[in-house]
Amino acid sequence: MRKLSVALGERSYPILIGRGLIAQGHLVADVVKTPRVAIVTNDVVAPLYLDAFVQSLEAAGLYCATVVLPDGEAHKNWETLNAIYDGLLAAHCDRSVTLIALGGGVIGDMTGFAAATYQRGVDFIQVPTTLLSQVDSSVGGKTAVNHPRGKNMIGAFHQPRLVIADTDTLSTLPDRELKAGVAEVIKYGLIRDPEFFDWLEANIEAVLRRDPDVLAETIERSCANKARIVAEDETERGVRALLNLGHTFGHAIEAGMGYGVWLHGEAVAAGMAMAATLSMRLGWMPEDQCRRGIALIARAGLPVCGPALGASRYLALMAHDKKVEAGRLRLVLLRAIGDAEIFSDVPVDDIAAAIDACCPA
Amino acid sequence: MRKLSVALGERSYPILIGRGLIAQGHLVADVVKTPRVAIVTNDVVAPLYLDAFVQSLEAAGLYCATVVLPDGEAHKNWETLNAIYDGLLAAHCDRSVTLIALGGGVIGDMTGFAAATYQRGVDFIQVPTTLLSQVDSSVGGKTAVNHPRGKNMIGAFHQPRLVIADTDTLSTLPDRELKAGVAEVIKYGLIRDPEFFDWLEANIEAVLRRDPDVLAETIERSCANKARIVAEDETERGVRALLNLGHTFGHAIEAGMGYGVWLHGEAVAAGMAMAATLSMRLGWMPEDQCRRGIALIARAGLPVCGPALGASRYLALMAHDKKVEAGRLRLVLLRAIGDAEIFSDVPVDDIAAAIDACCPA
Repeated sequence: MRKLSVALGERSYPILIGRGLIAQGHLVADVVKTPRVAIVTNDVVAPLYLDAFVQSLEAAGLYCATVVLPDGEAHKNWETLNAIYDGLLAAHCDRSVTLIALGGGVIGDMTGFAAATYQRGVDFIQVPTTLLSQVDSSVGGKTAVNHPRGKNMIGAFHQPRLVIADTDTLSTLPDRELKAGVAEVIKYGLIRDPEFFDWLEANIEAVLRRDPDVLAETIERSCANKARIVAEDETERGVRALLNLGHTFGHAIEAGMGYGVWLHGEAVAAGMAMAATLSMRLGWMPEDQCRRGIALIARAGLPVCGPALGASRYLALMAHDKKVEAGRLRLVLLRAIGDAEIFSDVPVDDIAAAIDACCPA
Repeated sequence: MRKLSVALGERSYPILIGRGLIAQGHLVADVVKTPRVAIVTNDVVAPLYLDAFVQSLEAAGLYCATVVLPDGEAHKNWETLNAIYDGLLAAHCDRSVTLIALGGGVIGDMTGFAAATYQRGVDFIQVPTTLLSQVDSSVGGKTAVNHPRGKNMIGAFHQPRLVIADTDTLSTLPDRELKAGVAEVIKYGLIRDPEFFDWLEANIEAVLRRDPDVLAETIERSCANKARIVAEDETERGVRALLNLGHTFGHAIEAGMGYGVWLHGEAVAAGMAMAATLSMRLGWMPEDQCRRGIALIARAGLPVCGPALGASRYLALMAHDKKVEAGRLRLVLLRAIGDAEIFSDVPVDDIAAAIDACCPA
């Protein structure tokens, strides 16, 4: 088992990475305030892992309520969130309960937000079962639900007490979702870790064929990057915004195509290609570095072109993104592989030209 | 203008108390991050104060969006909260916006929760316009909406940046609501401030006839008590729970009668009478002290008897209160006027007997 820590003072917490961890209920029992936990999961993950997880928790002396939600980004809304509240209230959970998110990013974000807001805040534990949630969304305390007018518009910062990434759960992950997770992995290399980027160039095929050691290394190095950034800037007032590389373009793709048509990681992948292209066209990133970045994304089986929505539609959708601050579009762009920066004064014409270049009709 | 401070480190904030403060837009302008604010109010307060407030804010260089909600506890729910989100999104408010709650406790609680959760948290300012919100709910960062299964079940701790209590706004407050606010005022005397209780015994008629100096003194001394408790225990893990004197009984009254039939302050008043009676019957509070407490509540024109729901119905409703921890009913009881304590092992029969004594059929 590999172990990392997110250093946030009294809100610090460990990230455990390894095989067979959901069978070790004591990992959870060691950190809860009372023996009462409530597992929130979805109807795809539940048949695979819920019974075994409940058994391991009960064997460790815990009492488990369970809430099973419908799967998918389309259900990341208030109605589904309310199903969590209803489940907790029906099970008479008080504020000493610990919620446990068993699933991917949607389950983690919604369970975290339920924990942030149930009876003004209860503890929660992340047990991510997708690569994307293991390397990214389960760490850092961002929780949210979508609003009809925008993704993740309603949310809170609420740190988990513990993250358990059981790499065995990746064995049942569809290839498309595995690749979507790799997009966020590549992101860490691009924004701050050139050695990791080099390592990924050498190991990307092993990642895709799910070599266990390579996967564990991938998750550990990704989480180490994420943990460092979160510890520096918990609520995204500075450096944490670098994690949004490709995300402003990507959110435009997700919103423009209708949520769920493109996976988040796929949209981020194309968005990172757009950000690299824009960085190069502005003369900020050397052309060969841009090509290396885009090539690795492509080798991971991820899109490097966006849908042909038209640059003006992209720009309109990007203007609605949460990263807009005081009316100015803020973009994460690249100086080099491993060196990212935030810009809020990029000429709109240049952004439009990069979008056109990356989104062939 | 009187000024107090809630000492919470980097989240400390001032409470300003005085006449004509909403005409002084610079008080708000001095604390906001950007000139963009959104005022949330209701359809009773808006015709009285909204235009004047907007004018003073605009004169201070601020841009104001406004959201006007239906009045009343019955609207303290997700649908109304969503109207706030919709208004903010329609006005293209980003996370640099500051929300301003202009109204009573319901507006303050909902606006605060919207601020806690809009784009993962934005700043907010409380401008309470009722006595209850000026002496209690606007201070301390408790925010919430109701759930069909319970009051304030969904919420967050989110401190305001500033509280402005303009005592002129109390001139339009109905008598019944003024008295409801006095219940929370008396509470501070009962739980921790015997000198304030003595002062209230001497000045209760002046409070009820709205003598401006006496009102200002009442608000300042109440806020000083609240601020001290919140600074000691922001998230209610200890001493802050004393503020719940009478509230567990009171919530049972509110829920049992249907929210809005009894005002919150009225239910708390009867609840405090029950708590004092129970304290006396258990031999923990001298009989004369109990009588003085109940007498002051009665002199304030507040109920000292609860509705005859029957003790078993009270107990069932109390068991659903948020203050239940790990299955044990926690009650705030009194040792004397100015000396409260939390008990979690009061025999149910004694609680039932006190309820019966205070709720004549």
